[in-house]
Amino acid sequence: MTTIDAAMLWTPAGWRADAGFTADVSGRLRATASSASKHWAVPGIPNLHSHAFQRAMAGLAERQTNPEDSFWTWRETMYRFASRMTPDSVHAVAAQLYAEMLEAGYTTVCEFHYLHHAPDGRPYADPAAMSHALIAAAQETGIRLTLLPVLYMSGGFDGRALSERQRRFGHDTEAFLRLLDGLRREESDMLRVGCAFHSLRAVPAEAMHAVLAALPADAPIHIHIAEQIGEVQDCIALRGARPVEWLLGHAEVDPRWILVHATHLTPAEVQGIATSGATVAICTTTEGNLGDGLFPLRDYLDAGGAWGVGSDSHISVSPVEELRWLEYGQRLMTRHRNIAVQPESSSVGETLLRGTLASGENATGHAVGVLREGACADWITLDDEAPQFAGVHTDDAIDRWIFSGNRNLVREVHVAGRRVVADGRHHVRDAIATRYRDTLKTLLSD
Amino acid sequence: MTTIDAAMLWTPAGWRADAGFTADVSGRLRATASSASKHWAVPGIPNLHSHAFQRAMAGLAERQTNPEDSFWTWRETMYRFASRMTPDSVHAVAAQLYAEMLEAGYTTVCEFHYLHHAPDGRPYADPAAMSHALIAAAQETGIRLTLLPVLYMSGGFDGRALSERQRRFGHDTEAFLRLLDGLRREESDMLRVGCAFHSLRAVPAEAMHAVLAALPADAPIHIHIAEQIGEVQDCIALRGARPVEWLLGHAEVDPRWILVHATHLTPAEVQGIATSGATVAICTTTEGNLGDGLFPLRDYLDAGGAWGVGSDSHISVSPVEELRWLEYGQRLMTRHRNIAVQPESSSVGETLLRGTLASGENATGHAVGVLREGACADWITLDDEAPQFAGVHTDDAIDRWIFSGNRNLVREVHVAGRRVVADGRHHVRDAIATRYRDTLKTLLSD
Repeated sequence: MTTIDAAMLWTPAGWRADAGFTADVSGRLRATASSASKHWAVPGIPNLHSHAFQRAMAGLAERQTNPEDSFWTWRETMYRFASRMTPDSVHAVAAQLYAEMLEAGYTTVCEFHYLHHAPDGRPYADPAAMSHALIAAAQETGIRLTLLPVLYMSGGFDGRALSERQRRFGHDTEAFLRLLDGLRREESDMLRVGCAFHSLRAVPAEAMHAVLAALPADAPIHIHIAEQIGEVQDCIALRGARPVEWLLGHAEVDPRWILVHATHLTPAEVQGIATSGATVAICTTTEGNLGDGLFPLRDYLDAGGAWGVGSDSHISVSPVEELRWLEYGQRLMTRHRNIAVQPESSSVGETLLRGTLASGENATGHAVGVLREGACADWITLDDEAPQFAGVHTDDAIDRWIFSGNRNLVREVHVAGRRVVADGRHHVRDAIATRYRDTLKTLLSD
Repeated sequence: MTTIDAAMLWTPAGWRADAGFTADVSGRLRATASSASKHWAVPGIPNLHSHAFQRAMAGLAERQTNPEDSFWTWRETMYRFASRMTPDSVHAVAAQLYAEMLEAGYTTVCEFHYLHHAPDGRPYADPAAMSHALIAAAQETGIRLTLLPVLYMSGGFDGRALSERQRRFGHDTEAFLRLLDGLRREESDMLRVGCAFHSLRAVPAEAMHAVLAALPADAPIHIHIAEQIGEVQDCIALRGARPVEWLLGHAEVDPRWILVHATHLTPAEVQGIATSGATVAICTTTEGNLGDGLFPLRDYLDAGGAWGVGSDSHISVSPVEELRWLEYGQRLMTRHRNIAVQPESSSVGETLLRGTLASGENATGHAVGVLREGACADWITLDDEAPQFAGVHTDDAIDRWIFSGNRNLVREVHVAGRRVVADGRHHVRDAIATRYRDTLKTLLSD
C-alpha cells in the first residue's frame, strides 16, 4: 500500500494538514493519519480534451499558407497529418503524449477520438483498432483514460457528405453504437467509455437524438461547440439558433455533458450552460494557437458554471500554462487583474485549481479530482525544494505554482496508487521516447 | 578555445550548414570550418527588460485586493516588496534569476534598475551598492549585463514629489549623472552601462533633456512608455500629447532608444517609432499578468519596426513563452493565425526569433544576437535528442522549438565562449538556489 507522502493535502476547502490517505489494493483512497512532515500533494489534474495524434504535428502548422490563415486552414494541415496515421503510430504518439501529460501533472485524459478507420475510410479488421491503440498507450503509461469515440457524419450543417479527408472519421449511428458497445465491455477502473459528437455541424439532429436514446445513463457526453464565429453563423443560418442555444433547446443538457470550447456565447447562453450543470472544457493554449477567441470566464463564474481545462491539440502539455493564460486572457480583455476569484478564496491560482479539479468526475466518469475516502488514488506531489516555493506561506503555494514560471514543479505522480513519475521523470520515459522518435522520422520522412 | 559544436547555425538569413565559429580568448567569435555532424546552435537571446528583484515576488500578487485590481494595485504590492530588499537580497535574487535566464537561453540581460537607495531614501555608503549587487550577480552567473540605472524623480505628470514608497528610487540629475559616470568606469566586455528614464510621468521634461545632453553617444536609453491607458490619459492632460507622440516630438528618438511596452499606440505612433529606428521591448507575459493590453505587432512589422522581448517582472523566465504568446495574443485579437510573418520566411517562429535577435545590439550595447566574426561568443545549443525535434525538417525546427510545448529544449549555453549551462543546468545552480532559498525565507518571514 502506498501512502501520500505529504504534510499538506489540497482539498476542496483548501490545504489540510490533518488529513492523510493511503491507496488500497484496488487503487482507491483510504483515510489514514498524516505522518509526513513536508511536501504538498494535490489531486491529479484531469485533462478534459485531447486529440492525441495531434501531438506529433505540434509546431508544424505555424507557417503562413495565405494571409487569411485561420482555424480552417489549420484544419487542412491537420487533415493531411491525420491521413498518415496508423494504429501503430497513434499508439507511439499517444504513449509519448501521455507520459508527458503525467510528468506535467495530468492523471486522467479524455480522449476525443475521431480517427477511426483506414485511410480509404474502410473500417480496420478490428473496427476498434485505433481505440485499442489509445487504450494500449494509456495502459503502457499508467494514465487513467476516458475514451470518447466520436460520431462524425457530415461535412457541414447542410448535411453534405464527408470529404475525402474526413472519411477516416465517419460512422452511421448503428456502426457507432456497436463500437461504443464493444468498447464499454472493456471498461475497468482505469478505463471509462463515454460518447462524443464531433460538433453540431458534423452530426445531424436525428442522429444525435438516436444515439442519446441508446446511451447508457452514466456515459459522459462531449461535444465541440461554438469554437468558431463561422460555425455560429452557419448554425444560425441552417438551424435558426446559435450552437449552444440550439443544443440547450434540443437536448437534455445536464451534468453528463461536456461542452468543449464554448467560446462564443451570449449572456443567455452563459446562464443556460451554468444552470444545466454541464461542464465547459476550456482549451486555452489551443484556442490561442487557433485564434478562436476568449471564453467569457468572469460571467460564467458569476453564473456558477462548471469548467475545466484540456490540452486539445497539445501545442502545450501543461495544466499550469492552460490555467495561467486562461486568467491572462481575461486580464488582457478587461484591463483588470485577478479576474478568476470566488468567495471561497481571493487567490486566483486556488480558484483556477479548484475549478478544474471539480470538473473531474463529471467530465471523465472517474472519481477523480478530489482526495477523499473511496476516490481514485491519483495525486501529484509538488517539488517543495524548488526555489519558487522557498519560504512561501501556505496561502500562496498554489499561486506560486501557477504564476511563477516555467519549470515543471511536479515531482512525483501516482495513479491508482502506483508511482508513475519520480523526480519529474516518467518511469518508462526513455523507451517511449525512442519509439516516438522512430515513428516521427517515418511520419515526417516525405 | 571553444568551438560551436553544431552542424546547423542560425544566422539572419536562416540556418546555415557550412559555417562554424570558435571563441577566441577575448570571448569573441572567429570563423572556422564547421566539423560537427549534429546539433543546432542559435545566438543567445537578449532579454530586453528586467527588474531582477521582482523575481522573488512572482506569484505573490495573484490575489484580489479589490474588484478593481489593476496594474496600479499590483504596484502597491511591488512597492511593499521592494521596501524589504537589501543589496545582499538583491544579489541573491538576481543570481537565482540570472541562472534561470541562462538555462532558458537568455544570455544578455538589460537590467532596468530603480531600487537604488536604503529604505529611508538615503544613499547607501556606496551610492552604487545596489548596482554593484546586480553586477556581482551577473559576474557570478556569467550572464552578459547591460545595467540601466533609472532616473526616477516625481510621482506623476504633475511633478508631485515621490511618495514614501518611491523614495528608494529617487535622484536629482546631478547625483544620477555621477552614478552613471562612476558605473561607466566599470564597463567591460561583459558590462555595458546605459541610461533609463523610468517613464515620462517620473521624469520632468527639463531633467530628461539635461541628462540626454550629458550622456555619452553610445549609451542605450531605455524608457517605460504607454503601458497603461491611465498613463496615456494623464500625459494628454498634462503634456498635451500621448506619451509616444510627446517623446517623438521632444527628443531625438533614434536607434539608441528602447521603448519598453509601447502598448497603446495610434497608427501614427506605430509609424513614428518604426521610422525612428528605436526598438520596442515587448514584455508579453508581464503585460498579460498586469492586464496592460496587446502590442499592435502586425502593424508594427508592416512599418518595419524593430522589437525584442523582455521578461520584466519575471512571472515567467522563458523566451519561448514570451514569443509564443506574443503571437497568440495577436491571433486572439484578430481571429486569424500566423500573424508574425515577413517576406523572408513564412514561418512564425523564425520571424519571431529573427526579430528578437536583431534587437540585441541596439538594446544592449553589446555585439550580441548574431553569430558572425567578431561578435560576442554567446550561443545556445538546442537538445536535438528531444522528442519534439524527431525527424523534423530544418525549416520547421524553430517552430517546433517555440510552438511545441513546455520542456526547456536549451541544452547548452555559452557566454563569451564559456559554457555556463550543460545538460540544461547552470553550472552553479545548486549553490545559488540554496542562498536564494535562505534569502526568501527571511524576506517572507513576516
